[in-house]
Amino acid sequence: MIDEKGILFVLSGPSGVGKGTVRKELFEQDTDLRYSISMTTRNIRPGETDGVDYFYKTKEEFETLIDQNQLLEYAQYVNNYYGTPREYVEKTLAEGHDVFLEIEVQGALQVKENFPEGVFIFLFPPSLEELKNRIVSRGTETEDLVINRLKAARDEIEMMDAYDYVVVNDRVDHAVEKVQSIIQSEHCKRERIEKQYKRILEDETK
Amino acid sequence: MIDEKGILFVLSGPSGVGKGTVRKELFEQDTDLRYSISMTTRNIRPGETDGVDYFYKTKEEFETLIDQNQLLEYAQYVNNYYGTPREYVEKTLAEGHDVFLEIEVQGALQVKENFPEGVFIFLFPPSLEELKNRIVSRGTETEDLVINRLKAARDEIEMMDAYDYVVVNDRVDHAVEKVQSIIQSEHCKRERIEKQYKRILEDETK
Repeated sequence: MIDEKGILFVLSGPSGVGKGTVRKELFEQDTDLRYSISMTTRNIRPGETDGVDYFYKTKEEFETLIDQNQLLEYAQYVNNYYGTPREYVEKTLAEGHDVFLEIEVQGALQVKENFPEGVFIFLFPPSLEELKNRIVSRGTETEDLVINRLKAARDEIEMMDAYDYVVVNDRVDHAVEKVQSIIQSEHCKRERIEKQYKRILEDETK
Repeated sequence: MIDEKGILFVLSGPSGVGKGTVRKELFEQDTDLRYSISMTTRNIRPGETDGVDYFYKTKEEFETLIDQNQLLEYAQYVNNYYGTPREYVEKTLAEGHDVFLEIEVQGALQVKENFPEGVFIFLFPPSLEELKNRIVSRGTETEDLVINRLKAARDEIEMMDAYDYVVVNDRVDHAVEKVQSIIQSEHCKRERIEKQYKRILEDETK
């Protein structure tokens, strides 16, 4: 039998590109994928469960894990840490499940550094013009703010160099289908499964 | 607009693994793929059309093309040459169509040498035992012949090193779905489309 390890898939892309929508739709269709559960120092809220919504840690615990390189990425928002614990990801992969992480570009680049064997997918806007429309239509942003966001988006697009795949989010169902294809085809990559197949060969020719 | 070149996909694998069945089923579902049309020196038969069934050439013409490295692979059977003309493949790819070539392992390795930018898919039997059953159930082969074929199959399996993907042909519909995923995901590969996307970025920020 072939016992295959899971693969970490990281979906990222410029802000406003629709990462969350694609992730949500993907999980509605694919029950085999596991979310990457984040770790945080913010207080647990009513209705949340430790180990389901987040792993909750004290600031001291979190900083110790940072020192031990136990976070694939982390960032600080409003005095709280948020990050991706290496241990949960590795345990889930070892159990044979794929892990899916949707994250901002800066976080994805950190993950790439700490876990280069992951598969990195860049969600791309159909065009910058379309991205601009989406940012503007969010509401009441000033012209300056929109220009700044576009500048940031351009910088992020320059970062696509670090990724394995680029998926255009022209339609959510198309983007989801492409991400599913990437997940399936990555499991067919020769270098991933070569050893397992050679083992079959040896077992059956004894 | 993005004008994307096509990709050459090469499906190969041990004899008896079911390459032809997978290819046939794939073409029934996917109308965008183009067959690679072979070149031959054998005589045209009633009902065949030059440039559709084969490109028909004289022995002298074929040998000239061999000398000019105009064949991605070729072989000789029963005094006739058969091969894959580079020109047809390159023209079809330039028009933006993917080309699909189903071929024996020796031919695939020749194509790999002459056209390394192709995507090479190895169709794998669910197990060598299963492969053996398929070979035996074909008919009246002697024990020695079966043993020889199995030995050949093992040698071919050792050749999977040259391939990009391995697809197990446990069920034809599963194998076809995986090949389709590989085709779709290869079009999302960052290195293939990076230049095109950077062009969008430049156009829209002028």
